[in-house]
Amino acid sequence: MASVLRHSSRLGIRATCLALPRSRNAYATAAPYFNNEPSQPSVMTSIPGPVSKKAIEELDSVFDTRSLNVICDYEKSVGNYLADMDGNLCIALNSNPYSQIASIPVGYNNPHLIATMSSKEAVNTLVNRPALGNFPPGYWASLLKTGILAVAPKGLDQVFTAMAGSDAIETSYKAAFIYRRRIERGEGVSFTPQEIESVMKNQTPGSPELAIMSFKKAFHGRLFGSLSTTRSKPVHKLDIPSFNWPHASFPQLKYPLEENIQANKMEEERCLAEVEDVINSWYCPIAAVVVEPIQSEGGDNHASPAFFQGLRELTQREGILFIVDEVQTGVGATGKFWAHEHWNLKSPPDMVTFSKKAQTAGYYFGNPMLRPNLPYRQFNTWMGDPARAILFRAIIQEIVRHDLVKNTAETGDYLYRELEKLSSKFPERIQNLRGKNRGTFIAFDTPERDAFLKKMKTFGINIGGSGETAVRLRPMLVFQKHHG
Amino acid sequence: MASVLRHSSRLGIRATCLALPRSRNAYATAAPYFNNEPSQPSVMTSIPGPVSKKAIEELDSVFDTRSLNVICDYEKSVGNYLADMDGNLCIALNSNPYSQIASIPVGYNNPHLIATMSSKEAVNTLVNRPALGNFPPGYWASLLKTGILAVAPKGLDQVFTAMAGSDAIETSYKAAFIYRRRIERGEGVSFTPQEIESVMKNQTPGSPELAIMSFKKAFHGRLFGSLSTTRSKPVHKLDIPSFNWPHASFPQLKYPLEENIQANKMEEERCLAEVEDVINSWYCPIAAVVVEPIQSEGGDNHASPAFFQGLRELTQREGILFIVDEVQTGVGATGKFWAHEHWNLKSPPDMVTFSKKAQTAGYYFGNPMLRPNLPYRQFNTWMGDPARAILFRAIIQEIVRHDLVKNTAETGDYLYRELEKLSSKFPERIQNLRGKNRGTFIAFDTPERDAFLKKMKTFGINIGGSGETAVRLRPMLVFQKHHG
Repeated sequence: MASVLRHSSRLGIRATCLALPRSRNAYATAAPYFNNEPSQPSVMTSIPGPVSKKAIEELDSVFDTRSLNVICDYEKSVGNYLADMDGNLCIALNSNPYSQIASIPVGYNNPHLIATMSSKEAVNTLVNRPALGNFPPGYWASLLKTGILAVAPKGLDQVFTAMAGSDAIETSYKAAFIYRRRIERGEGVSFTPQEIESVMKNQTPGSPELAIMSFKKAFHGRLFGSLSTTRSKPVHKLDIPSFNWPHASFPQLKYPLEENIQANKMEEERCLAEVEDVINSWYCPIAAVVVEPIQSEGGDNHASPAFFQGLRELTQREGILFIVDEVQTGVGATGKFWAHEHWNLKSPPDMVTFSKKAQTAGYYFGNPMLRPNLPYRQFNTWMGDPARAILFRAIIQEIVRHDLVKNTAETGDYLYRELEKLSSKFPERIQNLRGKNRGTFIAFDTPERDAFLKKMKTFGINIGGSGETAVRLRPMLVFQKHHG
Repeated sequence: MASVLRHSSRLGIRATCLALPRSRNAYATAAPYFNNEPSQPSVMTSIPGPVSKKAIEELDSVFDTRSLNVICDYEKSVGNYLADMDGNLCIALNSNPYSQIASIPVGYNNPHLIATMSSKEAVNTLVNRPALGNFPPGYWASLLKTGILAVAPKGLDQVFTAMAGSDAIETSYKAAFIYRRRIERGEGVSFTPQEIESVMKNQTPGSPELAIMSFKKAFHGRLFGSLSTTRSKPVHKLDIPSFNWPHASFPQLKYPLEENIQANKMEEERCLAEVEDVINSWYCPIAAVVVEPIQSEGGDNHASPAFFQGLRELTQREGILFIVDEVQTGVGATGKFWAHEHWNLKSPPDMVTFSKKAQTAGYYFGNPMLRPNLPYRQFNTWMGDPARAILFRAIIQEIVRHDLVKNTAETGDYLYRELEKLSSKFPERIQNLRGKNRGTFIAFDTPERDAFLKKMKTFGINIGGSGETAVRLRPMLVFQKHHG
């Protein structure tokens, strides 16, 4: 953050307030994870520079480049630093879109990952890609147990593997619907002829009127079921048909938290009451409530453990499944491996989804009843990618070896404290600082946000926004104090 | 087929009729692609054998194994032969579920694929996985042009990359809806405040009432949008909410085709009239019609080029997009690279989806208007997997090097002719033989189908069914006459 803030002192308008007076070395307390990282960003051209511009033009003739941020040279990227085609090296302080939209946890060209994916096992799995539901490899159980399941959230010992975040979410919704109808129908009761006939016409009762509830500003993906629960931005949803599924308000907390305890408590109670009200008044039964531990795409909106405990209790009481979407928050970024570990729930969520930093995707569950009563109800050709599961195992090994969750907690605490000091000094510039004790999952609001972000990029500091006015930090797990 | 049929002579019931009297060597005309393939299947234990049983039990504690067919030893698999954990070697004549559900085109442990995925380029792409929409690698344009786009169907020079078949289909539907509203709204016209407000509640007009039309017995995937167009089996759909989208009848042709020309013509005209009728009477506009060139999961149902030409003309006349789902049929299996090339369309489909044998997924399109008017409307974190795109390029290279599309056409013709002879000899055993001039995409109906399939497995011949009564062949592209 120091270098971020130091560079910001060279900015014209608002960012000047972020300059830190201390020298960079004062923060270099831990040994670096990457000895071959540069000591600082280096930007020699405008971004995009001439080589990049030419490459973008070539790409655009066949592939939409309007969302393109940087055209990259991944061979020259290292650790926290991303290289572009003009030889500029930027530090990936933010992971949306930097660090590949929060999906690179342990650094570019991590040597352990390179060794793993060069191994005979990985190559074999890539070229002989198993259809996991029909033809799992002999090592699949062991790969799951030493990889994906070794980090399963407490109380959840089963996994359904998928390809990407949206698939993970949609298959968890399917599991919720199948479970709901199983309970309603009664164990061992077969489908009726009416159900079998009507479902082929997409009609009730075979294709039932059931819903998933989500929250305002939520982001859960972009396919048809997941998009029906996404509420972050209209541009994601416009013109796409959606299910008539409901949402409730997510708490809008006031900051600093310590000074708004009572107001925030009331706000969370109001939101819980709204959830209960929607459950009881919606035109059809609600099979599950889905929630992000921290709403990310929607603007880094936090709620207290009490709110989530209340949600868990409420859903349990109402017989509704509770799905925690950890696609963004999972795998260490909040200073715990799973963000929902911060809540100390009495009973675990029914399902927890993962993707991004896991480099593979899916959902965890614990209740054996969440396995459908028949095979092929929850099934597809590949059912995930075991090569990516091998990569996730290597990522876990790196996280353990370097104690990266602890590093992230500590680096996050440091960044938070520094920003807190700045916020007291320049309260109009750094507003609503949030993410205390949530690792590096830190954000604040600032006026003229977009101008600030643009300027920072010219110094090789990739920092990004979320929601309307937030600046959010999302460094990799290998981001250290000396990168600040 | 010879060995299939030779083995079948040892079967009890129905399969005896399939025995061929000629010696195996009579068919070994072409040089084998894999010199290290065994000369025949070898089955030493029951399937699953003792080692496999133990492995399945271990796996089942954490992962649903009820759809498991074989637990595999991919290191020992080679070419067309799949090894299990007990050392049995089965020949993969059928690809659903064999050949990993039609998704392994050029043989297990193909040396060129091993070399490709061991390369520095592939490993770099695996460990530094780019978020392609924001951070494409510099080589992305060239990788697309020399890989995925080098085999683009005629008239379609753009690609949207995705992860798996369902994603490919769902994103093509999204493109169709966005396009439809763009045309309705008029070029350059912005979203209205009402649209922006209503879409966040999943309501019209922002979230419009629009539909995709599919066909009876179609299979297009299992996520919420794709599943709403899937109509193959109730078990795929039961208990899952769906969109109120329509379907029309797919032709049910009579065989042999030569003897039923007039009846089949009338049947196809009836189906086209039904499509037109649904378009004109459905409660909401239809944005696209989606169709498989050969309905695969639904029972290997074929229609003539005239039917598809009629569909193309009809959709064009009605201003409806025409999506050809080549997830199963694409990449050579029908004796052309894309099955729809058999139709000689005057103008290309609007979109063609691919996955499976491509080892990556997505959809091709040609019309620049199918790029949404704004970025981030069709977007996700990874937007496909460039490592898998590298693999697809290597697969294409293998297909070209060995002229495998031609091989598949020739092997298919041979298999078809032999089955035709058997069908004349045993008309009650081999009924409705289909797939003439469609490469190895061959199927027939047989009574007591399931008993037949089960018995064949005990001889190491993996052959499978589709629909209610069909036996279908789906060998890899490297399946040769001498494997028969």
